[in-house]
Amino acid sequence: MRHFSLIALVCISFSAFAQNKIIVFQTDFGTKDGAVAEMKGVAIGVSPALQLFDLTHEIPAYNIWEAAYRLQQTAPYWPAGTVFVSVVDPGVGSARKSVVLKTKSGHFFVTPDNGTLTLVAKKLGIAAIRQIDESRNRRQHSAESYTFHGRDVYAYTAARLASGTITFEQVGPQLPDSVVRIPFQEPVYSNHIISGNIPVLDIQYGNIWTNIDGATFNQLKLQTGDTLHVKIFHGDTLVYTGDMPYVTTFSAVPDGAPLAYLNSLLNVSFALNMENFSIRYRIYSGPDWKVEISSKNG
Amino acid sequence: MRHFSLIALVCISFSAFAQNKIIVFQTDFGTKDGAVAEMKGVAIGVSPALQLFDLTHEIPAYNIWEAAYRLQQTAPYWPAGTVFVSVVDPGVGSARKSVVLKTKSGHFFVTPDNGTLTLVAKKLGIAAIRQIDESRNRRQHSAESYTFHGRDVYAYTAARLASGTITFEQVGPQLPDSVVRIPFQEPVYSNHIISGNIPVLDIQYGNIWTNIDGATFNQLKLQTGDTLHVKIFHGDTLVYTGDMPYVTTFSAVPDGAPLAYLNSLLNVSFALNMENFSIRYRIYSGPDWKVEISSKNG
Amino acid sequence: MRHFSLIALVCISFSAFAQNKIIVFQTDFGTKDGAVAEMKGVAIGVSPALQLFDLTHEIPAYNIWEAAYRLQQTAPYWPAGTVFVSVVDPGVGSARKSVVLKTKSGHFFVTPDNGTLTLVAKKLGIAAIRQIDESRNRRQHSAESYTFHGRDVYAYTAARLASGTITFEQVGPQLPDSVVRIPFQEPVYSNHIISGNIPVLDIQYGNIWTNIDGATFNQLKLQTGDTLHVKIFHGDTLVYTGDMPYVTTFSAVPDGAPLAYLNSLLNVSFALNMENFSIRYRIYSGPDWKVEISSKNG
Repeated sequence: MRHFSLIALVCISFSAFAQNKIIVFQTDFGTKDGAVAEMKGVAIGVSPALQLFDLTHEIPAYNIWEAAYRLQQTAPYWPAGTVFVSVVDPGVGSARKSVVLKTKSGHFFVTPDNGTLTLVAKKLGIAAIRQIDESRNRRQHSAESYTFHGRDVYAYTAARLASGTITFEQVGPQLPDSVVRIPFQEPVYSNHIISGNIPVLDIQYGNIWTNIDGATFNQLKLQTGDTLHVKIFHGDTLVYTGDMPYVTTFSAVPDGAPLAYLNSLLNVSFALNMENFSIRYRIYSGPDWKVEISSKNG
Repeated sequence: MRHFSLIALVCISFSAFAQNKIIVFQTDFGTKDGAVAEMKGVAIGVSPALQLFDLTHEIPAYNIWEAAYRLQQTAPYWPAGTVFVSVVDPGVGSARKSVVLKTKSGHFFVTPDNGTLTLVAKKLGIAAIRQIDESRNRRQHSAESYTFHGRDVYAYTAARLASGTITFEQVGPQLPDSVVRIPFQEPVYSNHIISGNIPVLDIQYGNIWTNIDGATFNQLKLQTGDTLHVKIFHGDTLVYTGDMPYVTTFSAVPDGAPLAYLNSLLNVSFALNMENFSIRYRIYSGPDWKVEISSKNG
Repeated sequence: MRHFSLIALVCISFSAFAQNKIIVFQTDFGTKDGAVAEMKGVAIGVSPALQLFDLTHEIPAYNIWEAAYRLQQTAPYWPAGTVFVSVVDPGVGSARKSVVLKTKSGHFFVTPDNGTLTLVAKKLGIAAIRQIDESRNRRQHSAESYTFHGRDVYAYTAARLASGTITFEQVGPQLPDSVVRIPFQEPVYSNHIISGNIPVLDIQYGNIWTNIDGATFNQLKLQTGDTLHVKIFHGDTLVYTGDMPYVTTFSAVPDGAPLAYLNSLLNVSFALNMENFSIRYRIYSGPDWKVEISSKNG
C-alpha cells in the first residue's frame, strides 16, 4: 500500500510539470452527425485520464480565417500545456502538412497547416513546429481504409501528446519556424482617420468587432462619452455611416441606439443597445469589410 | 475485495460532505464563438479537478425569464454542492449586483442579480446570498482591461468556490435574503375555469407548457380520457380554441391530433401527437401569453 | 493527506479493471432547454466518477432511423465498456420495452427498443439483451410523478451500469437475442448497375452518403479517375442524373464540380467540391431515396 501511494505521488508530481491532459476541440463539422463523437472516442481510447472540451464545432464550413480567429481569441485563457485540435480542412487529402505548433506560451495546436495558425503564431509566438509523422502517429489500422484525418491523425495525435504517451519531439520531424499565413489588413492611423477591417462578428448579439486595437485607437485621443464618426465599407461600397458615442456600458445609450466600445479583446467594436447591428445594417465580417473611424471633435 | 469496498465507502462518504467540484454553465452566448470556451478555460485554470457541464448556451439573447426558468427546471436534478453559473446579462456594466445564492437545497448560483434568481429562490429556498467582492474574486490582471464579466468574475468565482479554493463566506459580504424578482402570473382556479400562462415551450417538439400545476389542475376533477376545453390568448387576442383529451401517453391520440398531459414538471401541457403545436398555431411563450382551461364534462 | 492519497490510488487501480465509467448521450431533445442537463445531473448524482459525453442531441425529432445510424457510425470508435444512452422515443409511454443491449464488441446501449438498435445489433453483434427492471432501476421517488423516461430510467440506469453500481445482470431479466428492426434496403449489384439508398447526409457539408459499401462497389471494377454515371430517385421521380469522377481527394476536381468518393465508413458518397450537393439538387436522406450507379467505361 505504501508503494502505491509513492507511485501516486510521483504521478501527480510528474503531471504538474508535464502536459496537462486537456484537449480542446474546434471543427466546422457541426454537432448533428457523429464526426465529433468519433474524434472524442478515439481520444478517450488513447487515455481515459484526458479531459475533453469544445471550443466550437460551428466554424462556417471551410472558413479557415474564422478558425484562426477563434483559436487566437480563446487559447490565452487556457492553462499552459493545453492541446488544441482544430480541423477546418478544405484541402483534406491535398498536400497541406499536418503539424503541431508549440507556442512560447506553452500551448499546443494540432491542425492542418493551411492558415489556421496565422493568428496564434503571431500572438503567442512560435516555440517550435513539428510535422506529424503518420507512420507512427496515426490510429492503428486506419491506413487500411479511407482516412478521416480529424479522427485518425489529429485527434489521435493530440490525445497521445496530451496524455504524455508521446513527447512533443515524438510528434515527428521539426519544421522551420513559420506557418502558412493568411494575409490580413492591419489597423492604420493616418491623417486623423483610423482604418481597419472586421475580422469577426460577435455573432450571437450581432455586434461588429474590428481589428482596431486600443493602442491605435488611443491616437484619436477620445474620452468616454465623446462622439465617433464611423464608416463601414463592403469592398468599395459605403454600407453604413453614422455617429455614436464611445462608452463603457451598453446601457449608457437608449435601446436601439448605436454605441462604440472596446470589447473583451480591447478592440474597437460597434453595437446597438439591445438590438442586432449586423442584421439591421447587413454588415458581416471578412477581409472585404473595412471600417474608418474618426473623432467628431477633432 | 472487502478492502476495496471499505475504501469505496470512504470515497463516497467523503464526497457527500464536501463541495462536489461540479460547475454547470448557462448563457445566451451561443456556441459559435469563443466566449464559452474562454469561461471554461479560466475555470479549469483555477483547478483541473473541476468537472464542467453545460445547461444551455442557447437562452434567447437577453431573455432573463427563460434563464430563470431553465435554472429552476434543472437544478433539482443535480447533487447538492453543484455550482451553477448563469450569465444572461443585458445590464452588463450597469448597477446590477454580482451575487452567489446558496439555496436551502445546497445548490449555488453565480449570476448577476437581475431576475435570473426569481424562480430558484422561490422553489429551492434562500439559505444565504453574498455579493461577489471583485477586489478578491476577479481574474488576475483582468481589471487592467475591459472586463468580460462572464469570464473574469462569474466563471472565475464559480471555479474558486466549486474547487474549494474559497469558502462561500469568502465570496463577499452577505446581502439580505431577497433577490430581484420578475413578476409573473400564478395559476388561478375560479368559477370552473383555470387561468394560467405559458412560461416556456418544449421547444424541440413545439409542445405548450403552462404554469398550471397538478394541484390546481386537480380542481377540475378530470379523469384520464376526459375532454378539456382550451383557449389560448396572446394579449387580448384569442389565438386558439379547441377540445382535447387529457391523456398520459401521446400515442393515445391519432397522429396530428391535440392532447393535454402533465409534463415532467407535473404542469398542464398541450401537444399534437407527432407534430409541432407551437408552429402549427403560432403559439409562443412569455408573460403576454395566457391560457384558460375547463372541463367539457362540468 | 497521506490517507487520502492512498484511497485515491486504490480507487484508480480498481477502476482500471471494471466498467470504464464513460457514458455517451444521444437524443432528439436539442440543447435549448434543460432536458439533457437533467439527464446528466441524475447521472452524475449516481456517481461523480463518471465521464459524460455527447454524441448528438440534434437527431431530427422522432427520427429513429437516424438515431440508429449515428450509433452505428460512432460506437466502434469508443473503448469497450462505454455505455451509450439513446433516447429518441416517439412511443414514450406506450408498450415498447426499455432495454440494455450488450454487443459482442463490449459496448452497452440503453434505449427504448423501437428500432434504435437495428444497426448496432447487426454491425457489432448481440452478446445479450436485458429489459430494464424499473422496480429497481428507476430514479428514487420518480414513480410518484409523471416520468421523464430519458432521465428517470435511461440516464439513471446507464449511470448505475457505467459506474459499476449494478452489474449488467442486475439491469433486469434477459430477453431473446433479437431487437426491433427497421427494414431497409441493402445495396445490390445486378446487370452492371448497383442500387442502394441514402441512409443519411453528411449534413454539415451537404454530401450524399449512400449505403453502398466498398465490397459491392468493387464489382464495378473502377479505378481512381474513372467516370461514374449516377442517378438519384425520390420514390419514382428521377431527381438527379450526372457523371462524375471517382476520386480520393475533393481537390481533384474544380470548385463546384461533382465527385464520387468513399467516405470514412468506406461507403460510396457524392459531393460538390467546396459546395453543398444536397442543397443544390434538393436531395435528402431516408428510405424513399434511391441511387443507381454504373461505370461509364463498362
